[in-house]
Amino acid sequence: MSKLWGGRFEDGSNTFFEKFNESFSFDYRLIKADLKAGIAYARGLEKCSCLNANELKQIESGLEAIKEKVENDKGFLIAAFAKNYEDVHTFVESELYEMIGEPAKKLNTGRSRNDQVATDTRIYVREQIDETKSTLRDLTDTMLKHGKKYQSVTIPGYTHLQKAQPVLWAHYLLSWIEMFERDCERLEETRKRVNVLPLGSGALAGNSWGVDREFLAKELGFAKITKNSLDSTGDRDFVVDFLYNASMIMIHLSRLSEDLIIYSSQEFGFMEQSDKVSTGSSLMPHKKNPDALELIRGKCGRVIGHLQGFLMTLKGLPSSYNKDLQEDKECLFDCIDQTKACLKVMKMVFEGLILKKDKLCQASSKGYLNATELADYLVAKGLSFRAAHEVVGKTVLHGIAVGKELHELNLDELKIFSQCIDADVYHSLSLENTVNSKTSFGGTGRDRVTKAFQHALTGM
Amino acid sequence: MSKLWGGRFEDGSNTFFEKFNESFSFDYRLIKADLKAGIAYARGLEKCSCLNANELKQIESGLEAIKEKVENDKGFLIAAFAKNYEDVHTFVESELYEMIGEPAKKLNTGRSRNDQVATDTRIYVREQIDETKSTLRDLTDTMLKHGKKYQSVTIPGYTHLQKAQPVLWAHYLLSWIEMFERDCERLEETRKRVNVLPLGSGALAGNSWGVDREFLAKELGFAKITKNSLDSTGDRDFVVDFLYNASMIMIHLSRLSEDLIIYSSQEFGFMEQSDKVSTGSSLMPHKKNPDALELIRGKCGRVIGHLQGFLMTLKGLPSSYNKDLQEDKECLFDCIDQTKACLKVMKMVFEGLILKKDKLCQASSKGYLNATELADYLVAKGLSFRAAHEVVGKTVLHGIAVGKELHELNLDELKIFSQCIDADVYHSLSLENTVNSKTSFGGTGRDRVTKAFQHALTGM
Amino acid sequence: MSKLWGGRFEDGSNTFFEKFNESFSFDYRLIKADLKAGIAYARGLEKCSCLNANELKQIESGLEAIKEKVENDKGFLIAAFAKNYEDVHTFVESELYEMIGEPAKKLNTGRSRNDQVATDTRIYVREQIDETKSTLRDLTDTMLKHGKKYQSVTIPGYTHLQKAQPVLWAHYLLSWIEMFERDCERLEETRKRVNVLPLGSGALAGNSWGVDREFLAKELGFAKITKNSLDSTGDRDFVVDFLYNASMIMIHLSRLSEDLIIYSSQEFGFMEQSDKVSTGSSLMPHKKNPDALELIRGKCGRVIGHLQGFLMTLKGLPSSYNKDLQEDKECLFDCIDQTKACLKVMKMVFEGLILKKDKLCQASSKGYLNATELADYLVAKGLSFRAAHEVVGKTVLHGIAVGKELHELNLDELKIFSQCIDADVYHSLSLENTVNSKTSFGGTGRDRVTKAFQHALTGM
Amino acid sequence: MSKLWGGRFEDGSNTFFEKFNESFSFDYRLIKADLKAGIAYARGLEKCSCLNANELKQIESGLEAIKEKVENDKGFLIAAFAKNYEDVHTFVESELYEMIGEPAKKLNTGRSRNDQVATDTRIYVREQIDETKSTLRDLTDTMLKHGKKYQSVTIPGYTHLQKAQPVLWAHYLLSWIEMFERDCERLEETRKRVNVLPLGSGALAGNSWGVDREFLAKELGFAKITKNSLDSTGDRDFVVDFLYNASMIMIHLSRLSEDLIIYSSQEFGFMEQSDKVSTGSSLMPHKKNPDALELIRGKCGRVIGHLQGFLMTLKGLPSSYNKDLQEDKECLFDCIDQTKACLKVMKMVFEGLILKKDKLCQASSKGYLNATELADYLVAKGLSFRAAHEVVGKTVLHGIAVGKELHELNLDELKIFSQCIDADVYHSLSLENTVNSKTSFGGTGRDRVTKAFQHALTGM
Repeated sequence: MSKLWGGRFEDGSNTFFEKFNESFSFDYRLIKADLKAGIAYARGLEKCSCLNANELKQIESGLEAIKEKVENDKGFLIAAFAKNYEDVHTFVESELYEMIGEPAKKLNTGRSRNDQVATDTRIYVREQIDETKSTLRDLTDTMLKHGKKYQSVTIPGYTHLQKAQPVLWAHYLLSWIEMFERDCERLEETRKRVNVLPLGSGALAGNSWGVDREFLAKELGFAKITKNSLDSTGDRDFVVDFLYNASMIMIHLSRLSEDLIIYSSQEFGFMEQSDKVSTGSSLMPHKKNPDALELIRGKCGRVIGHLQGFLMTLKGLPSSYNKDLQEDKECLFDCIDQTKACLKVMKMVFEGLILKKDKLCQASSKGYLNATELADYLVAKGLSFRAAHEVVGKTVLHGIAVGKELHELNLDELKIFSQCIDADVYHSLSLENTVNSKTSFGGTGRDRVTKAFQHALTGM
Repeated sequence: MSKLWGGRFEDGSNTFFEKFNESFSFDYRLIKADLKAGIAYARGLEKCSCLNANELKQIESGLEAIKEKVENDKGFLIAAFAKNYEDVHTFVESELYEMIGEPAKKLNTGRSRNDQVATDTRIYVREQIDETKSTLRDLTDTMLKHGKKYQSVTIPGYTHLQKAQPVLWAHYLLSWIEMFERDCERLEETRKRVNVLPLGSGALAGNSWGVDREFLAKELGFAKITKNSLDSTGDRDFVVDFLYNASMIMIHLSRLSEDLIIYSSQEFGFMEQSDKVSTGSSLMPHKKNPDALELIRGKCGRVIGHLQGFLMTLKGLPSSYNKDLQEDKECLFDCIDQTKACLKVMKMVFEGLILKKDKLCQASSKGYLNATELADYLVAKGLSFRAAHEVVGKTVLHGIAVGKELHELNLDELKIFSQCIDADVYHSLSLENTVNSKTSFGGTGRDRVTKAFQHALTGM
Repeated sequence: MSKLWGGRFEDGSNTFFEKFNESFSFDYRLIKADLKAGIAYARGLEKCSCLNANELKQIESGLEAIKEKVENDKGFLIAAFAKNYEDVHTFVESELYEMIGEPAKKLNTGRSRNDQVATDTRIYVREQIDETKSTLRDLTDTMLKHGKKYQSVTIPGYTHLQKAQPVLWAHYLLSWIEMFERDCERLEETRKRVNVLPLGSGALAGNSWGVDREFLAKELGFAKITKNSLDSTGDRDFVVDFLYNASMIMIHLSRLSEDLIIYSSQEFGFMEQSDKVSTGSSLMPHKKNPDALELIRGKCGRVIGHLQGFLMTLKGLPSSYNKDLQEDKECLFDCIDQTKACLKVMKMVFEGLILKKDKLCQASSKGYLNATELADYLVAKGLSFRAAHEVVGKTVLHGIAVGKELHELNLDELKIFSQCIDADVYHSLSLENTVNSKTSFGGTGRDRVTKAFQHALTGM
Repeated sequence: MSKLWGGRFEDGSNTFFEKFNESFSFDYRLIKADLKAGIAYARGLEKCSCLNANELKQIESGLEAIKEKVENDKGFLIAAFAKNYEDVHTFVESELYEMIGEPAKKLNTGRSRNDQVATDTRIYVREQIDETKSTLRDLTDTMLKHGKKYQSVTIPGYTHLQKAQPVLWAHYLLSWIEMFERDCERLEETRKRVNVLPLGSGALAGNSWGVDREFLAKELGFAKITKNSLDSTGDRDFVVDFLYNASMIMIHLSRLSEDLIIYSSQEFGFMEQSDKVSTGSSLMPHKKNPDALELIRGKCGRVIGHLQGFLMTLKGLPSSYNKDLQEDKECLFDCIDQTKACLKVMKMVFEGLILKKDKLCQASSKGYLNATELADYLVAKGLSFRAAHEVVGKTVLHGIAVGKELHELNLDELKIFSQCIDADVYHSLSLENTVNSKTSFGGTGRDRVTKAFQHALTGM
């Protein structure tokens, strides 16, 4: 008995097709979910008198015994793979029959693999959402811990990869915390949609045995039950939602990787990766490459490719269950694995990341990063902002021509561009003032950042 | 003045590049949002003494006057396009200068196009989320109204596009309502993330003038303010969230279209599309094609292509603002337009959709749709479900061989396959009973569906 | 020695990162290619005196011995996996060292993993292109063999899934042969681009030992050598080309699957799938589902997801080699596996496919499929085509109203719509004539199709 | 007459649906192709006696007159848009009827919009392939011209964005020429598949009037005619092929943009963009941003989004023509526009690009770029490569510790790591030698590059 059907078929199946068709080689990941759901369903059947107390007891202990074996007997699963089960559900029903005989044949009264797989997958995804969130929190914790060591460091802020305005490194770190915070939000929203039980929807039309679905939900820890059996069995929105959540995490990680790769180039020289997350070259003995970050950036494509691929699988599919839906699993599992691994590796990157403070200080002071500050100074002196902008533009051109930063120009040179400029300008143009002048909420001013950092460290 | 910068530049720009670089030809859609945000920001500047009361008044009335012209003077915008503005922000500042002179040059004190465009786009997306939701509600209302006319109709339920079990048409409709309900949920979640104000984040580092961002948020109806200036100006998550929401709506519409196209084929013949949403052939005079549904199905690819495209644009982008982000708008606008149009056209489809009741009744009664019912009957007589499944499989094979449905086999024939079968089997096998036996919550049993339908009609 | 570098590193690596970073668990597929390329490179080194004859001999026999083990000793590879090699190149160099000692350390003089992996992958892809093409040919052969059995069968041709004009089943089959023919063309074009040798490009800048690259190309059966070392090591166009080729094959297979799934529905009833490629339901005993076709259709998304994912990985990547490129392999291998499997399964589908001739004949005769024929008849009688089109449109409306096909209307009824219609119209409207009137090249006229079919059977 | 059908329809269409359904607002781009194909088809009809000589003459001069108006009378097309034609084919037939009356109604005898639009699109794509190729050639010409000015300049070659080995700037440029060369190849391959005429395939089944399709092909400059009418009308492979070709061009442009953006950062400082392709900031007066390159990089996502979107539209589509195929045009047109514009803007970038030679020379000499050279030196002295690699790794670590480049270490220091090192090592380690030692074909050795550059300049 390696299939749950066959009475209607005359012609035996074909090995190549069976291999193509089977899902046990990957959906075995759902075993624990399937066993758990099986026990709950058996209890539901007993409640509506489809099983008697004794049958229930046998089924419960049979499923528990399988769980025990899966957890502790390595050979069990390997042996199972050799038996070529069609899928995890067939595996469970068949093994149960091996163990307890006849009552096993009653377990799936009114239950179809269609509501079964939807249930198992939701149990699994629910658990993986929690794990992903906690891995994400580990990363942000590590980033904050790293940031604490560099509270007073400034880096050049860039737009268009051109130096723009100096910001605190802590401020920079907090910008990523915001993104990861949104990623958590999205995971929580998906979790709400995942945490709805489809069990008891049958193949597509519902359950004929009056099984109490609210009871099943309570047994399996679901907050609600689904409202429509057709939707329940054909719905994979929750899988796509998760793939999308993972995609956004990967987008953020890819952008963070890009920054760190660039900042780790010899030319930027802002930081050094630890040896632990770097690799060398088989040919060039001097190389130390930021492979960890590059792989994370590269895997962003892979994860989003899965999102895209499964969306394509769903496009234009007739409603309810179609076998195409079996393609939901491998992409889901790979997205889970890759995303969690990337989060963990990024955590390792921050654990070993060393900033080169002198280089950063110098980089924050060169490149006209205080140009807006000069415009603001002129505005304070009475110019309109647009006029001040024009004046500063010309001053910068002059500075470039003579090879001096704005604060390196003497007062006479500055006065050529505007008579309003006085000696107090040099205070305005200092790195300290340039950073601290951003006093509005959310800005890089030191006081704001200190509070925000403190809040992130303790409040999240 | 067609640009807001230039002091630092020596060499004039190039017409072809200006055309390549400009965004006014599409971001003009943000005009009202930009004007609204401009008024709020001016008030904020006055509160922190960057503008005096008189300047504020001039700016307010200037911006109101522009709004008035945009709304009522068709020629105004056409003339504006001819002036080759770089973007909507340049347009507004320049037109304001034309109108009120000097004070216009003060409006953008401390404000960058980076926080400006983030703010405008959020105002626009917030509005479009509301419109999309309401268009979606119009569709579900129409589907329910349509369904009310066909309360007692059954259709064959399919899995794998093979007849499975009969369901009520109302049950079928409700399955789509569930999907659209989730789409609304997702839009609401995105709205929460959109409804956070980035204004006052400057170019990337924050605002130097101590502008009160909470005040700005109140003025513009935002629930919260963003927490980090770097994130605020480089964040387009909310755009991707909307593109994703639209993608899921389109996935659902594409699947619904697929069903209706198949059901409208001559072979199925379950329904007829109204002439209003069909078209003919230039060559074949007899054709009546379901173009509306095909275009909706086809446009699913287009919308998801935009999601995918913009995700790719974001992948590996350095943090903060990069010009690549300008690519967020055309895909966003097209997704909004296409999704809303598809929802409206699907509404028109249901307004004119006529079911062929006789055909549906007949189709629900033929094709062994009551096979599971027979298995359940045997289970009630004491067989285990798996044994019953085997028996029925063989009975069906026999039925096919002799060209009879299960309920057309006489008792003697049935008894060959199981001695448990008695005359009461014919009641079980009736279409009525097959539908109504699905009594668990969410099933197609008539009582369940009646309540669910009523709830959907009144409770949503 | 599980890495080929390390002198520059002080801090040991981390197990989790090593697992994240390694590629041997999947690039082991390149072993034979790597061994082959290794032998060729060793010969190249000997030619430019970097190896002496004895060293070359040792290396050659060492690499041959590894090949021998890989092919015949199952435990060898399993043991290798346990040694945690970083990649296939490390595995080969290390195993070679185990076998022959010092000379192994000379094998990679002037060779980098960058030109090495580019070479190995090209050898592998070249071979897989040939296999894919031959699998595709097997499918088309089978389709033609199947078609031979049904030479005289007509089916309704559809546009918009509405009946349009009848066509020969052979004509229908030939339309797919055309698509697969283009798929072969594309594979051949890609093969040309794959069949260019990068070996001898070093890490990025070229080879310092004057190795004769034309000689290497000859040894490895490449038609040309690459022209630029930077391009050679950073180029994965050929991988994308293959992913694209596979994507188009899958698009074609998905469309063919869609047709056959619809044609196999009870409502269409045009054909029956063999039991060999169908499966049953765990709940519904009567079901026979076209799982093979649904999986093929579903896997189209998966394969194209890989294309999309890898394109995203490449987007915006700095030139030359970056570790992100390691992500080329898993998607490539899965595309190869999935595409070949789908082609083989589609072949199985056609091997067992049985047409229901009566049903097809009847379906071709009903549904106004001869409406264009009537218009053509009227054109022959002197009407302009657009006027004839209008006349026939009205005639069809009348036919629908009275429940008759065009050829079932009597002459008096027909004459209401046009006086030109005479008794000879019934010949025109016959199924035979409707099919055979399409006499232009490429049309469904029987003579044309017979020739085309014959040509396909023998000429391809 | 704004539609070409209607006889079979009772209920008038709806304005909103007509707007949704129409394609004239974008397929007007095919006007010239449609007129050209119309003339050819009319000649074909005359040859098979469906038109007489006089009718042909009228149709020819009518279509020519429309072409004349389209080209010279701006108001004509604007007026046409106001008439709400369903599509370009309807526009042409209707305008022709306005002009010449009855014969216009005969033009589409045996021709369907299905074969018509396939033909028009192929004519259009064929032309655009030629334009894209020529735009690509303009870019490579400009790159080579730019390169001539910098023949002797070296830059650091990077892998993993870490300094690897120095290469000639000309060698770097040539690596892009290789990629663009492959892009041209792909366009040519697509052109071959585009250049096959579908006209005469009718709606799906072929042409009943015996029109000579070889004659049509000759008239329209097609190399071949399609072989199967079903395939001809449902095939959009050639559109996808072009979208794919454009995607690969954009991938290359995005990678080139990434390089140049990074090289233009203040930290790298390798080059300066011209003011012509840069823009400023509305807030920060000192900014000069590489907007041109960022937009090109960003638009890569957009173009590939279109590829992906249209692939999704095609996935699982029933064979032959479905209205979903109308979605081929907007993505195609946008891909054409964006790709050509990006190529032109990249050309402008190179026209104004100025290298900072001193900076590049210095950057090529610092960062252990000659480490592999030292290993090669040791190999020449008798060490095995792997042993030499180890030695150099340690030497580099020492160099980093004492803040010296390899060539800055004195002989005593070097000898600590290997006794083989002698005074001649300094010659080996020179920048000149490091570059020139790559003597194999395709390497960066000066002689090789000079020849390759010359060949590219003159031979392409």
